[in-house]
Amino acid sequence: MSEVDSADMGPWLSPDDMEYVRRKVPILYVDVVPVRLDSLGHVDAVGMLLLALDGTIERSFPTGRVLFHESLREALARHIDKDLGAMSLPQLPASLTPFAVSEYFPTPGTGLYDARQHAVSLAYIVPMQGDCHPGSDSLEFSWFTPGELRIPELQAELKEGHDVLLREAMAQLGIA
Amino acid sequence: MSEVDSADMGPWLSPDDMEYVRRKVPILYVDVVPVRLDSLGHVDAVGMLLLALDGTIERSFPTGRVLFHESLREALARHIDKDLGAMSLPQLPASLTPFAVSEYFPTPGTGLYDARQHAVSLAYIVPMQGDCHPGSDSLEFSWFTPGELRIPELQAELKEGHDVLLREAMAQLGIA
Amino acid sequence: MSEVDSADMGPWLSPDDMEYVRRKVPILYVDVVPVRLDSLGHVDAVGMLLLALDGTIERSFPTGRVLFHESLREALARHIDKDLGAMSLPQLPASLTPFAVSEYFPTPGTGLYDARQHAVSLAYIVPMQGDCHPGSDSLEFSWFTPGELRIPELQAELKEGHDVLLREAMAQLGIA
Amino acid sequence: MSEVDSADMGPWLSPDDMEYVRRKVPILYVDVVPVRLDSLGHVDAVGMLLLALDGTIERSFPTGRVLFHESLREALARHIDKDLGAMSLPQLPASLTPFAVSEYFPTPGTGLYDARQHAVSLAYIVPMQGDCHPGSDSLEFSWFTPGELRIPELQAELKEGHDVLLREAMAQLGIA
Repeated sequence: MSEVDSADMGPWLSPDDMEYVRRKVPILYVDVVPVRLDSLGHVDAVGMLLLALDGTIERSFPTGRVLFHESLREALARHIDKDLGAMSLPQLPASLTPFAVSEYFPTPGTGLYDARQHAVSLAYIVPMQGDCHPGSDSLEFSWFTPGELRIPELQAELKEGHDVLLREAMAQLGIA
Repeated sequence: MSEVDSADMGPWLSPDDMEYVRRKVPILYVDVVPVRLDSLGHVDAVGMLLLALDGTIERSFPTGRVLFHESLREALARHIDKDLGAMSLPQLPASLTPFAVSEYFPTPGTGLYDARQHAVSLAYIVPMQGDCHPGSDSLEFSWFTPGELRIPELQAELKEGHDVLLREAMAQLGIA
Repeated sequence: MSEVDSADMGPWLSPDDMEYVRRKVPILYVDVVPVRLDSLGHVDAVGMLLLALDGTIERSFPTGRVLFHESLREALARHIDKDLGAMSLPQLPASLTPFAVSEYFPTPGTGLYDARQHAVSLAYIVPMQGDCHPGSDSLEFSWFTPGELRIPELQAELKEGHDVLLREAMAQLGIA
Repeated sequence: MSEVDSADMGPWLSPDDMEYVRRKVPILYVDVVPVRLDSLGHVDAVGMLLLALDGTIERSFPTGRVLFHESLREALARHIDKDLGAMSLPQLPASLTPFAVSEYFPTPGTGLYDARQHAVSLAYIVPMQGDCHPGSDSLEFSWFTPGELRIPELQAELKEGHDVLLREAMAQLGIA
């Protein structure tokens, strides 16, 4: 592991650095729950990505790491841009208070599980005012109505933790 | 007082009815803190009305009563339309959870004071994406930067309770 | 309807007054979700009342009207005392911001339904540190573990709106 | 830097490891705003530590890092125990949603400043039901009434970021 090399990468970490850091401290993430609102603020639809990960296909909300020296708002904007495209026109939140906080541990049985790391994720509901197009990391991006979101089979397609996150978002949006 | 007459008014109350009800139950209000956000969600400015009320001039956030059979969202939309104009293009909140709750009592010395009534007001931060023009009830509508909002003299121009509301909004917006 | 008589009742309203006011303005309520927490703040159990109302038996969270000139905190304390007893030792919330807001309308099909009135209810999670004993209005008070709360049949026993409230509370408590 | 050695330390990091990690990722903290509440939940007092740090004396809320594989609740309990003593009897929050989020950057001029690191801190209001005694890291622990908290000179004694945090807590507590 070379500090010089990794320093050259700026806030990005080499795979070795990342693996090293992941066993030292909790890693900070942001989660985005994209929503389409009507003119009164009622939720028309909630959006999710479809991902192929490690041979399985599952749904996920846009999510990602907060980089060194990156603000939470910059991390939100970067992950939205990458996962939903430059034309998604997000309305980033006026307040940094997340509507939900998720904790993932690398040990099965202590809550939500993430084999790679101990992660803490701050989740935000983000109204989208443009067109969302999935980035190269995902197979598709789809909108679901409140009625569809309540279907257990759809919730079961969400990856570890994001099923809980969906139910937390539905509570926040008044469609629990 | 005639129930038939007042029933004819729909959700609006005659002055007699209003005065009668005001001595019976707490009256529900909504408060709007209009904000202009940059593309990352940072607050650029907070807006306030300038009103001439009972011979004094003071600043106020848009506020008003929730009518019988009117939803909170409809009340927010109606008061924004009346006070900031049809071109203000508000982004009404995805969640009905207010960022602050204010209680006004008709007795001096028990918290915030409102000679007319016992009122409970639910406050929402509302990003404005259009142009705000004051309605006929107010003299002007002005935007203030975070730096200006911290000036005690400006805060002192706000009417009873709205100075507290401004500081609560500043805390929520990360500019306390 | 006599104003003199009703004024004599203080903040309480005569049945006639109550019926009159209920057709004029939204009526303000508070909802209480009683919880038992462990030393780290994890929820051990959520409590509900069992009520016999109009010939049907259903579960409910403690709830009730905010009286004229009564603060939200006083209303919470009064309804907890009445429904859960003087030994329930509630830890009333440090913040008045509710975790959920419910709207009930007297017209079927426009959201939550309450035949009697248009009501807006502010809901608070309240840790109980003593023993809860149901008041005379209810048949029993029971605690349910997070596992039990997820059972659809239990949720179906809750009265109109309180099933939604339970799911909103579970999201807030991290057990969605 | 030896991974074997640092692995032996469990979640604690050697000074070298800590310095290394601090230049790679944002470091997660929790902040505690200790409060004393009356029986209705009104805040009687907010507590602060007095610290001697780098030759200067300043006030601070209890705060500290979240360790690898430590939950947010465990981190809150550990820092409260260390800073306020085993008899402080905190009522840890039922919800993990912080009332405020603070970001510190190691570059002056980009918001709050922390020379050591990029830190993101989640803040919680914690009612104390026992006796608070400062740990060995601090000179004293003092309670301040709402009236005292509004004094600019007291706010100026708080360390970088905690003056903002106090004003955010005051807003949340309804004493802004």
